[in-house]
Amino acid sequence: MDVRGETSVTRIEGGVATPRGFTAAGVSVGIKRRGTAAEAPLDLALVVSDRPAAAAAVFTTNRAQAAPVLVSREHLDRARGTTRAVIANSGCANACTGDEGLQVARDMAHETARLVGCPPEQVLVASTGVIGVSLPFEKIRAGLPAAIAALGADQGPAAARAIMTTDPFPKEAAAQLATGGGTISIGGMAKGSGMIEPMMATMLGFVTTDAAVAPALLDRALREAVDATFNAITVDGECSTNDCVMLLANGASGVTIDEAAYRPFVTALEDVCRELALGIVRGGEGATKLVTVNVTGAATAAEARRAAKAIANSPLVKTAVHGGDPNWGRLIAVAGRAGVAFELSRAAVTIGTIVLFQDGRPYDDAAPLAAEYLKQTDIDVAVHLGAGDASSRVWTCDLSEEYVGINADYRT
Amino acid sequence: MDVRGETSVTRIEGGVATPRGFTAAGVSVGIKRRGTAAEAPLDLALVVSDRPAAAAAVFTTNRAQAAPVLVSREHLDRARGTTRAVIANSGCANACTGDEGLQVARDMAHETARLVGCPPEQVLVASTGVIGVSLPFEKIRAGLPAAIAALGADQGPAAARAIMTTDPFPKEAAAQLATGGGTISIGGMAKGSGMIEPMMATMLGFVTTDAAVAPALLDRALREAVDATFNAITVDGECSTNDCVMLLANGASGVTIDEAAYRPFVTALEDVCRELALGIVRGGEGATKLVTVNVTGAATAAEARRAAKAIANSPLVKTAVHGGDPNWGRLIAVAGRAGVAFELSRAAVTIGTIVLFQDGRPYDDAAPLAAEYLKQTDIDVAVHLGAGDASSRVWTCDLSEEYVGINADYRT
Repeated sequence: MDVRGETSVTRIEGGVATPRGFTAAGVSVGIKRRGTAAEAPLDLALVVSDRPAAAAAVFTTNRAQAAPVLVSREHLDRARGTTRAVIANSGCANACTGDEGLQVARDMAHETARLVGCPPEQVLVASTGVIGVSLPFEKIRAGLPAAIAALGADQGPAAARAIMTTDPFPKEAAAQLATGGGTISIGGMAKGSGMIEPMMATMLGFVTTDAAVAPALLDRALREAVDATFNAITVDGECSTNDCVMLLANGASGVTIDEAAYRPFVTALEDVCRELALGIVRGGEGATKLVTVNVTGAATAAEARRAAKAIANSPLVKTAVHGGDPNWGRLIAVAGRAGVAFELSRAAVTIGTIVLFQDGRPYDDAAPLAAEYLKQTDIDVAVHLGAGDASSRVWTCDLSEEYVGINADYRT
Repeated sequence: MDVRGETSVTRIEGGVATPRGFTAAGVSVGIKRRGTAAEAPLDLALVVSDRPAAAAAVFTTNRAQAAPVLVSREHLDRARGTTRAVIANSGCANACTGDEGLQVARDMAHETARLVGCPPEQVLVASTGVIGVSLPFEKIRAGLPAAIAALGADQGPAAARAIMTTDPFPKEAAAQLATGGGTISIGGMAKGSGMIEPMMATMLGFVTTDAAVAPALLDRALREAVDATFNAITVDGECSTNDCVMLLANGASGVTIDEAAYRPFVTALEDVCRELALGIVRGGEGATKLVTVNVTGAATAAEARRAAKAIANSPLVKTAVHGGDPNWGRLIAVAGRAGVAFELSRAAVTIGTIVLFQDGRPYDDAAPLAAEYLKQTDIDVAVHLGAGDASSRVWTCDLSEEYVGINADYRT
């Protein structure tokens, strides 16, 4: 196949079960508290490939790694990047649960493997929810047959709901990539809704494709796509014990992605990942606005990212955006303390397209115009560091009273 | 004098004008908005020593340094650590104000020097308030004679009020140190109420003593005391363009602090600085609780401080404390992502005296007890990293809906 220079990515409706050869299910097994809902909430998601799929995954860098993270790492390694199924529960993170928790994560993989009919190491495991609370394996064992029975190409939405915790809405995305050799699909689902929500929410992403991709190339593609999407978002600057993004490629389309097709494949993969990542930000706890932070004029790409993350995580920037306050001084102050090269006399701050500070001088008269702009729900802010040519873009949400309420009042 | 081994520090009522030879004033010159207060708010503080005082200061590490920071650095340098007066205003930070702002800061020092009768470089300048807005020097020039006229040893409280922005209460502290050679006093004032509040609040601290201390020793003492106090607090993890702590020693007590008396002097200085620093935390924006974070078992002191700061700045930890939620998993998760050596299997979490996690195992049954403890206003949390013997203690406050309200709704 030859797709050089003719990338054609089309966004389509769909999710993890959209690519050929994948099915999904979402069922209720009683891990999540029922609350006042008449129906029991979905809390177990299953994604199955009808044939062994190449798999790649990125995991949390947190040194307190949850049991499912440890088991999935081990299985990816032992199965040499080949996977048949992913089993994920919400309502309990199975983190800081000691040896007992590790056994539960293993049992989840084993029981799923038995029912799917594959070796245990071909099953990946993920959990999200409260830290330090035991995950009742018996509920999962009892519920798994129903999940197997429910598997279908139209059950992506149920699976996307089954991994939700405090997420206000499910997050699915899919895209098609037309290549000379045929069309492939990429689909995914994710959940937020803090970078960490050890009580209830943790970032999980699951992406499937019917392209055939060698494990090493798949790994490279996933890392590149994640760096520009999931790793470029922040809700509250925290990093979970359970974060992971998994990518399965089963080749059911008959189309192989080789080096020549790598770039368009990454473009399509990024497209799906970005859509899921932005969904996580929009659905961040208490979020009312999506904020795109562009940093330019940095000495290096790493410093650009660092400054952008510092701005995106600043409680003062996030509260100012929440209140529609064109408080550009906060952007300068954060850039100045971010530990990166910064030259005030060459720096600039732009909100939307409105310049509020440039070359060491304030243009505070433009503040009312910026206040008007900040009433929108999608906000762009840009800071020029005046120190070089590198740039970075990250996404965040505002910080609202509701964030505090959600995180202060859950357990008490 | 010989005070080795016989440190006797007594906390006394007082502030910057308590040590002999110092007077202070706080007046209203119309920089702060009047609001609905019947009386005009105090917004200009003056501290004068009746003789040249040795001076030391620490300034913000933010690369966007405000004009008064630049001018005070320059003056300290040119006057070789000798100072007669400090002039400070609230309501405007005079930061990001370009060359014009620099001139205003210089003019403040010059006009104060003229009225006090000393060289301009013997005056230090500080400002706190909105970033990027011009500071009207004419108001300060017009108001300075009234400040000079108001100078008194009993006017420390007025000066402490005049540097407030969103601070809910003024912060003053004083202590006496009895030495073989006589008794010396140390007094100070400070304002918060975020580590950065570019709109309104910035951390400023002013400390005076009637001890005679050589500039180099004074500098060493200030850095040591600040590291254990002001640098060990955080309200929201931000670092201002205007932060500074200044220490003046005028020798009016006739007692000289030499190397032999250094340790008890630092103990007394730390005592005053800690009281002021804790006042800033208790008065942090929206704060309802004072949280002491103890980190032990770190590989190095720097890693201990880093982990403690990460915990103290975690929005999830701060909201959990606010809600009285014994969510110990959040403490583990932050320690794990703090970028320091951390060994989960040897880690521990204690809230008050209640162990909730130890040696890799949760003790979640104790959570209700911890919830009861968290109803207090002064909270201790401790995390053992399981990686070594170093420790660090920092102080923070909780994160409340009110913090968001204060910072979202000021300008709009």
